[in-house]
Formats: sequence, structure tokens, C-alpha cells
Amino acid sequence: MYGAGDVRIDNVPDAGIAEPTDALLRITHACICGSDLWPYNQMEHSDHGRRMGHEFIGVVEDVGGEVRTVQPGDVVVAPFAWSDGTCLFCREGLQTSCLHGGWWGGDLDGGQGEAVRVPLADGTLVALPVGEDDALMPSLLTLSDVMGTGHHAALAARVGPGHSVAVVGDGAVGLCGVLAAKRLGAEQIILLGRHPDRIALAREFGATDIVSERGDEAVERVRELTGGLGAQSVLECVGHDLSMQTALGAVRPGGAVGRVGLPQHEQIPATRRTFFDNVTISGGPAPARAYIEELMPDVLEGRIEPGRVFDRTGSLEQVPDGYRLMNDRESIKFLIAF
Amino acid sequence: MYGAGDVRIDNVPDAGIAEPTDALLRITHACICGSDLWPYNQMEHSDHGRRMGHEFIGVVEDVGGEVRTVQPGDVVVAPFAWSDGTCLFCREGLQTSCLHGGWWGGDLDGGQGEAVRVPLADGTLVALPVGEDDALMPSLLTLSDVMGTGHHAALAARVGPGHSVAVVGDGAVGLCGVLAAKRLGAEQIILLGRHPDRIALAREFGATDIVSERGDEAVERVRELTGGLGAQSVLECVGHDLSMQTALGAVRPGGAVGRVGLPQHEQIPATRRTFFDNVTISGGPAPARAYIEELMPDVLEGRIEPGRVFDRTGSLEQVPDGYRLMNDRESIKFLIAF
Repeated sequence: MYGAGDVRIDNVPDAGIAEPTDALLRITHACICGSDLWPYNQMEHSDHGRRMGHEFIGVVEDVGGEVRTVQPGDVVVAPFAWSDGTCLFCREGLQTSCLHGGWWGGDLDGGQGEAVRVPLADGTLVALPVGEDDALMPSLLTLSDVMGTGHHAALAARVGPGHSVAVVGDGAVGLCGVLAAKRLGAEQIILLGRHPDRIALAREFGATDIVSERGDEAVERVRELTGGLGAQSVLECVGHDLSMQTALGAVRPGGAVGRVGLPQHEQIPATRRTFFDNVTISGGPAPARAYIEELMPDVLEGRIEPGRVFDRTGSLEQVPDGYRLMNDRESIKFLIAF
Repeated sequence: MYGAGDVRIDNVPDAGIAEPTDALLRITHACICGSDLWPYNQMEHSDHGRRMGHEFIGVVEDVGGEVRTVQPGDVVVAPFAWSDGTCLFCREGLQTSCLHGGWWGGDLDGGQGEAVRVPLADGTLVALPVGEDDALMPSLLTLSDVMGTGHHAALAARVGPGHSVAVVGDGAVGLCGVLAAKRLGAEQIILLGRHPDRIALAREFGATDIVSERGDEAVERVRELTGGLGAQSVLECVGHDLSMQTALGAVRPGGAVGRVGLPQHEQIPATRRTFFDNVTISGGPAPARAYIEELMPDVLEGRIEPGRVFDRTGSLEQVPDGYRLMNDRESIKFLIAF
């Protein structure tokens, strides 16, 4: 990406093993993230450009001398942050705060490309028990980010059996949040969204109610739908000031807001109201790595199909179109098949 | 209280049973709360004045026809919010959000007085298994608010065995927060405070480290004391914007801030940093009623002595002095013995 709206397919130096803890992947599946649309709308021009993509599945082509858990030929999924798997935070399941890890892009390869050098491969990668052409690939790819992020939002919002849940945002993360809430036993799942295709998928994922109003009216509707009380758990899957206000307004006393939308503002509003109501605010970037083993059996055994958020598929050359389609809300999420 | 700095002992109409769910208490012990100092500093003049006091122990003098759990002669403690004990929120242990409850003062009697009509007595009051002159009365009185509030802060901050904990604020709530953290098994308890008498008591309550710096320097010191990481649990026991900033700065990734200081600002700062670090912000007014049964055995058996926060005792006539002493930081907390 060279700036807002300027995505190009370029040749870069070949990826290769640089450290003994590296693995080299040939990418088979990747995708475009809702968070990629922030720079797509706002990035200043850069002469060097920026490598994009942090959700991918690939085949291991080579490994460094210290790599133990994956080997050439393995089909593997990478979470959107790389991590050593051994530090204090990784052991606590918070791999996004790994003391030695980091994020794709920058000096590293991006997942929206043919090959990626994966640092700290033992901590980062998870081998998949299927071949690279398996029909489950779209759903397995969501374990790299979007399904783990929806699951994280649901955990942060303390979704539990029988709960009333509201999901703010009908993007791919919000839809996966619906799926995660259903999986965790929620009884009532209210999606706040207004796009017919997304609403239809949300209903199939388990949404019981749809609220298409916005702001205070949306809060009012959620309260009506929850006996005047508000929802026990609210998943904030957007990151705007207004969406956070809506989330905090829709949560009942003693409830929790799980936030996974990248915050576009520096302050959380409604301090006093949420204080008197003992509202918990939790969440952040999902430690997707922590959730892969837990969620994968449900994908492999067909209990959840998060890959249905991919409504468009294209080749690497079509990635610029993918950005445009997602930005124009013509696509929920764009899958790149290599 | 007739306005900032203007506390008077006045005659008011006698308290009496008004509803069949009421109990009438003759107050034996009450106290002044740190939160009473907000109006003591800021209240505009009122011709009618405002009844004060929400922490009290008394002897039941009379009960309405529907009261079942207490009877005349019982010595009882009242939490700082009254509640029915049966609604959705009470059953969840969040009595401060009771659908039919409320707060002392306003049209109700205040605890800083000779007698109080207690609404919804069955849900609100807890009988004490000791006489009204028992030596444990100061510690039992803290169950009405300050010890329950410290405990609530510790629970909201998810204090657990072996944890590193930082407590922002060395008032009576902060000191009870230290005690609560110790009781819940914290290994390292860092008190942020600067008053020698409070620091001394904090050490006896279990504080392992004292940080007397403020703001960014305090955050830096907490980080040094916790291996550069920050504390797993931070108890925010003040309510100022600066104290919340300090709390959010001192917490480690994946940690939690439990806030019980009444917020004096409308926004929570540091949204993005706390997001990327997956920090949880929780807390609010403590459902003190929910904690009385849990904490009382530890008081009765001498395992905790929260009553030590009372460093001054006086009669009802001395209450105006008590406010002045607490406001001037010459007293941690003032006990009123009737």
C-alpha cells in the first residue's frame, strides 16, 4: 500500500530463512482485514510502500535449525501477531503482548503476498491436519484473526449460557462475534447492523434480533428487547466513539463490554454512568494464537463455519479490487486464493 | 449539611415505621465516609440541609408487619445502599443496582443521626451475632461500606493468589483495599500514598512496598517494582482523573483496574494504550450487602481488623469536628459512638 486507496502488486526481495527460529511459508490462502481499511482510507503517501496482510495459511517450505514444531510440507495457520510461546504473557495466553513478538508488516513480509518469513515459528504457527486444498480452508483461515477476534470479544464481554448479548457492528468481526456468542451458549443475540446480506448471515450464525437504528435509538431498541435492562454482554466490533457510546449505553448494570474494534478515539465516554452501573470494559487485540487449538475442532467437525464471512474470492492480482469492494461495502470479507 | 464546610447537629422529625417492610433502628455506631468530603468541599448552600451518613450499626427498635429476618433487639449492620434482596440484580449480588432500592439521605434518614427508618429491611439488614458494645464494633461497622468497597476493588481488579497489586490512594478505602488484596492471596502489594500514619497502617495490613511519588513518576516506580511489567491488579481508590491515569499506567498487559473512587471526570483516558494491552476496567459502587456474610467471619474470628482505619472517635455532637479532621487529613476515618 503506497497511500490511501493506492494498493499495488509489486515484486519484493524473496522471503527466506534469516534466523534459526524462522520458518519460510509459501502462502496458499490469505485475506483482507477490516483493519486494513483504516490505512486504505487514511494512509499518507509513502515512496517505499507498506507490506500488507496479517491473516494467512501456507505450506512450510523451509525451517531454521532450531525449529521443532513444524517441518517442510506442513500446512500451517499463522495468527495476526507472532510470538515466542514461552514468555510470561504467552504462558498466560496473551500472545499479543509477547515480550519478543510483534506484528506482520513493517520490516517483515505481509500475508497478502506469495511467501512469508515467519519469526519464532515454534511459538507462532499451528499445523493443520488437512491438505492445502481442503474445503475447510476458508473457515480455518478465520482462525488467524477474525474468528479469534469475535471469540475474544465474547470472552471479554463475559458471554455465558443463557445470556443476552448485543453485537455492535455487522462487519466480519461482528458476524464472528455472533457465532462466538452462540457457541458460548448465549440465548438472545441482538445484532446492530443494517446491511441485508450481513443480517441474513448473522441470523444463520445465531442472531435472534436485529437492530438497524443507530445511536440513542439503537440503545433504546436494545433495552426494549431486553426487558428494559440492557444486554448482559455487549461486543464492540467497530472502534468508533459512537459505537463505543452505543455499546456502553446498551449494557445492563453489572454487565460487560468486550471491545475489539480498534479505537479511533483517545477516551472512553460515560465514565460516571458506567461506574454507577458497575459496567466492566475489557478487550483489545485478540490473542488469536491462544484460541486456535480451542476453536479448530469446531471448524474441523463442522460445528461452526466462520469461513462464510468470505463472500468474495480472488487471486493475488485482484487484491486491489478486494480492497475497493470491502471499502464500498460490496464485500464482507475478501479471500485471496493463490 | 447545609453547604460546603457547614455541618450542623439538628433536630429532625422522629424516625418511625412507615411501610410494612420497614425497620426502625436506634443507631449505636456510625461514621464519616471519604465520599462525604465531596459535598463538604463542593455543596451549594441549601436552606433545608441534607441528611448525612450511610454507614451504621444499630439496634432494631421496631419492625413493620412484613419483616421476617430481623426483630426488635437485634443488633444489625446496614450497607450503604438499601435493597430488596429479591430482584434480578440482588440475586446476582449487585444490590447497588436493586430495581426497588436506593441510597440513604434524600427523603430518608441519614446514618449520622440517632435513629433511621430502614426500608426493605429484610433485603437490607444483616443481624450481627454480638452485643452492641462488642469490641469488634469498629471492624463490623466497616462492613457497611469501606471494607466491602476495598474488597470490591480487589475483586474488580481480579486479585488472586500470588498476584502483584498496586493500590492507588491511601485513604480508608485504599487501606481496606490493601487488606482485601492480602486476604485474597496477593503476594506483592504496592501502596501509592504519602502520609506516614497511613503508610504505617498499610504495612500492618499487608503492603509490601510504598510509592510516594505521583503521576508518571509513580507509574515508573510501580513498573520498577514489578520487573518492568506493571501490576497485575490495580485498585483505583480515589476517583480523580490523575489517579485513574496513574492506575491505567501502572497496570500490566492483560491486567485489570478495579475502580471504586467516585469518578470526578466524564471520560476514561488512555483508550488506545489500554486497548493494545488488553487492560480490563471494572468496578463501581460496591454491593456491600453482598459481601457482609463473606467478610464477617474473618472479622469475628480476628483474621482481619479493618476497624483500625478509625483513628478518631467522637460523639454525635463532634461530627462537625470529624468532618474537619478528615478533610484536613488529620484523621483517616472518624467513628461516631452514640
